[in-house]
Amino acid sequence: MEKPLILVTNDDGIQAPGIKILADALEPLGEVWVYAPDRQQSAVGHGVSLHRPLRVHELRERWYMVDGTPTDCVMLAVRDLLARKPDLVVSGVNPGANLGDDVTYSGTVAGAYEGMLLGICSFAVSDVSYSPVHMETAGRVARAVAESLLRQRLPKDTVLNVNVPDLPYEELRGVAVTRMGKRDYQDEIVRREDPRGGAYYWIGGAEPSHVEEEGTDFEAIEHRKVSVTPLHRDVTNYGALNALNEWALSL
Amino acid sequence: MEKPLILVTNDDGIQAPGIKILADALEPLGEVWVYAPDRQQSAVGHGVSLHRPLRVHELRERWYMVDGTPTDCVMLAVRDLLARKPDLVVSGVNPGANLGDDVTYSGTVAGAYEGMLLGICSFAVSDVSYSPVHMETAGRVARAVAESLLRQRLPKDTVLNVNVPDLPYEELRGVAVTRMGKRDYQDEIVRREDPRGGAYYWIGGAEPSHVEEEGTDFEAIEHRKVSVTPLHRDVTNYGALNALNEWALSL
Repeated sequence: MEKPLILVTNDDGIQAPGIKILADALEPLGEVWVYAPDRQQSAVGHGVSLHRPLRVHELRERWYMVDGTPTDCVMLAVRDLLARKPDLVVSGVNPGANLGDDVTYSGTVAGAYEGMLLGICSFAVSDVSYSPVHMETAGRVARAVAESLLRQRLPKDTVLNVNVPDLPYEELRGVAVTRMGKRDYQDEIVRREDPRGGAYYWIGGAEPSHVEEEGTDFEAIEHRKVSVTPLHRDVTNYGALNALNEWALSL
Repeated sequence: MEKPLILVTNDDGIQAPGIKILADALEPLGEVWVYAPDRQQSAVGHGVSLHRPLRVHELRERWYMVDGTPTDCVMLAVRDLLARKPDLVVSGVNPGANLGDDVTYSGTVAGAYEGMLLGICSFAVSDVSYSPVHMETAGRVARAVAESLLRQRLPKDTVLNVNVPDLPYEELRGVAVTRMGKRDYQDEIVRREDPRGGAYYWIGGAEPSHVEEEGTDFEAIEHRKVSVTPLHRDVTNYGALNALNEWALSL
């Protein structure tokens, strides 16, 4: 039987330590191919490069870097460069949480999301610490998730967002299937002046807080559990349809 | 009473005709401020620029261009540059549909989504034709939606995705509140060679098809209706939680 083909990407760039840890961890499970951005692309969201062409550069066997976003990497690899459709797309390991509303900005999650849109079983994996010291733990968790997903399918139109506490593997307290919590971003805008007196602005990177709610990804992490959140392709707010139907009458 | 403050953005750049049509249409409703990208940013998703600073340039009174994404524009304007919090964020008019899975790539939708995350009533508006000739219709629809949203609130954590048929206003057949349909993208990868024989790749832009389903945004447009889809901040697939809880036991 053919070995499973596993496509690995990330959003921190192909030189980031997390993607090496991830690829190494998945190696025993199949044939691992890496297509990743040539540079830092975090917070790039689900951006795709339609207005410029892309270059692909082979770094070493089965490791390719692309001058684009994580989504570009997955599209190029799946639609053209790989010899066959992958059995799995895994994006990470991201150094830093992708919890709650982070998912909407996250290039890591977008890479996996694109795999799901292409009909492939996919997940994203993040180490929740912004200065991780136990990223191998996330690698081991990713292998366990991947092994399981190669045996059984995910529900339709679903991509998994996996967050792992930054702890030695033995200190994890299990896995929680969670819902997406809510961030409370406090990004200040930092205004500076260049040497010629011109203003420029940084979007501040203060560590965000969140709303304390039961059953969320945040809660799982606080309890030292791996958080597995199923994200849906369909983002309709079905609960709002009735209210809006009345509202639409007044248009 | 103070006039409502309306923030307008887009993803095609501040020079695009759609944003002028939108700002003009909203002018009677309040004080309109425009913060928009300095260039084409479509398909940029919910990207935010954290790794470089941003410049802001005043084009004329209340019109500012930013060298960033639609999300950057909304963050900068709301968190810093505007004197007070807007009453409404409107993103568009996009020339081209944002239907079904388009929303995940769309910079237009992301601009409105960011407004929602900042706690502001927000919507995105698109003319479904990629070569629109009746974009004023979308402007008139946007004014009607905005007027209505200034009177009554949206359901919590909800952003509206409005798509408008490219028809004279009189030929519209009403408004449908819809769910998000599914795209069937057939993007081919186009491989070319530069004059030195090096390969480069375009992500193909073939017009995508979709899955025919009742109640979707696609169906509304086919019936010459304005499609209004409420999108949710929480993208958890609640229907998958039980199946995954069983699955997680095997990890």
